[in-house]
Amino acid sequence: MRILEVGPRDGLQNEKTTLTLDQREVLIQKLLESGLSDIEIGSFVKAESIPQLAHTYELAKKVVPFKKKKFPQKKLWAFVPNEKGLERALETQIDGVSFFCATSETFTHKNINRTFPELKTLLTNLKKQLPKKFPNRVYLSTLVYCPFEGIIKPIQVFKWIDFLLNLGFDEIALSDTTGHAHPQNLKPIFKKLTRSYKLKNFALHFHDTRGTALLNTYVALEEGFQKFDSSLGGLGGCPYAPGATGNLATEDLLYLLQSQGKSKNISLSNLTDTSFLLEKYLGKTLPCRILQTIRCSTNKTNKD
Amino acid sequence: MRILEVGPRDGLQNEKTTLTLDQREVLIQKLLESGLSDIEIGSFVKAESIPQLAHTYELAKKVVPFKKKKFPQKKLWAFVPNEKGLERALETQIDGVSFFCATSETFTHKNINRTFPELKTLLTNLKKQLPKKFPNRVYLSTLVYCPFEGIIKPIQVFKWIDFLLNLGFDEIALSDTTGHAHPQNLKPIFKKLTRSYKLKNFALHFHDTRGTALLNTYVALEEGFQKFDSSLGGLGGCPYAPGATGNLATEDLLYLLQSQGKSKNISLSNLTDTSFLLEKYLGKTLPCRILQTIRCSTNKTNKD
Repeated sequence: MRILEVGPRDGLQNEKTTLTLDQREVLIQKLLESGLSDIEIGSFVKAESIPQLAHTYELAKKVVPFKKKKFPQKKLWAFVPNEKGLERALETQIDGVSFFCATSETFTHKNINRTFPELKTLLTNLKKQLPKKFPNRVYLSTLVYCPFEGIIKPIQVFKWIDFLLNLGFDEIALSDTTGHAHPQNLKPIFKKLTRSYKLKNFALHFHDTRGTALLNTYVALEEGFQKFDSSLGGLGGCPYAPGATGNLATEDLLYLLQSQGKSKNISLSNLTDTSFLLEKYLGKTLPCRILQTIRCSTNKTNKD
Repeated sequence: MRILEVGPRDGLQNEKTTLTLDQREVLIQKLLESGLSDIEIGSFVKAESIPQLAHTYELAKKVVPFKKKKFPQKKLWAFVPNEKGLERALETQIDGVSFFCATSETFTHKNINRTFPELKTLLTNLKKQLPKKFPNRVYLSTLVYCPFEGIIKPIQVFKWIDFLLNLGFDEIALSDTTGHAHPQNLKPIFKKLTRSYKLKNFALHFHDTRGTALLNTYVALEEGFQKFDSSLGGLGGCPYAPGATGNLATEDLLYLLQSQGKSKNISLSNLTDTSFLLEKYLGKTLPCRILQTIRCSTNKTNKD
């Protein structure tokens, strides 16, 4: 079972408040100390396009040495938009990198201002530029639905899966960008994947926009998938997808996994403590259900 | 498939703000007009014990005739704590009544100040007092966990199920009062029920305290259960169970059911409109994920 914590990247990029570099560093250290093995720390994008993730280079220069010393087995990841970003990411000794892809050309255009042929060229170049055996993953966005093109057919998904696997990428993060996934529209995709592909090449990246993220995760677990992305406190979303709210909350995911006897080395109480700290940094309440419950119990205790 | 909307009872009883009788009446009318077939309108309890549900008698005197005229096939339900409450409920021509039961004696004592033998006597008396073929249900609270006694074993659940079915009650609402249910602790209960009982005698009543309510619903649907309780906007909880937050949101439940082609006669947009009205009445934001998404999209549209 592998949880990839995407809060410091996918989460923070959709928050109005920009954390300081020190706060982002504390957040990542605490996530590592909670027992999480894989964390996406930020993006090597231009500061103008996502100010919340500016200076990820400097951040990586701090957290990568900390991680290598204290948790040499764990992996810090970074999102990389293009060849220049990859060059800079590799300089920081980061452990793994992630790239963008999407099933919808309109979404791709609005998101990274490229056509499908241009996206294919970009991904081909990025793969070539990667050192041999360097851990990598690609987000395949708009898995079942695009805010501009509507329902996405499984055939559009598999065209990209085959393209990406043929290029030799390690892992595809099947990403329900808008939170429209539910067991009914996931089943045809899961059916084909479990029959004809290696599940270790796939991660699931759900957003909880319509409350289905944990349900979808359960269905994926039953099918044998073992890699899931989540965001501390349910932070985040996608600024380019209207109406998309937070990622699946790491705490809620962990509650489900631990009820099945999995991921017992991760501390749920450390995670919720870190979420409460993050709420202070951001000056807002995070949507994770388990946080609400703790908040509610604490209030009651204070009153009684 | 039957959804029983418990917002006007289980929901409102846990809100700090008490709605006016007129507001409660509007709420119930709008729920009926949204296509919901079954609504629990309130409790025949003393006004001192749950002020939010005071004057349910007067409310029933207004909404029952409205329902009988406009929606004769639908059912309005009321919660009844004792013999006197049942007498008053029956006077209003309500369509169905619900009673309390729990697997935990401590919870029962804290909740209704009775021992298990006293609870058994009460339920026996209530059943005798019911007119023949009068629709009835019993909430079996603390299904898997009690805030005072901890984990509940399935054997404790089945003792009460057998007692209640032997007395001749129509339906048992298996109620995860504290939101501790997940597929792992539900499975032994579901296994025995699907093997040896008639599923039409059971409803599932989940709280979303730890984000698992929709997931549990999905698992129950897969097992063949067809009756679910939910609360508009995810309103409510249980004032006697520390930390328990809202019921499963009706909108989130409906999104799942409609994705499977079920409950298509209920209007999701009517429900969310009613939730936004309810938010104005209560002066607060409701936890339902779908409401958050609509709010988020609307804000974005307003800005663009």
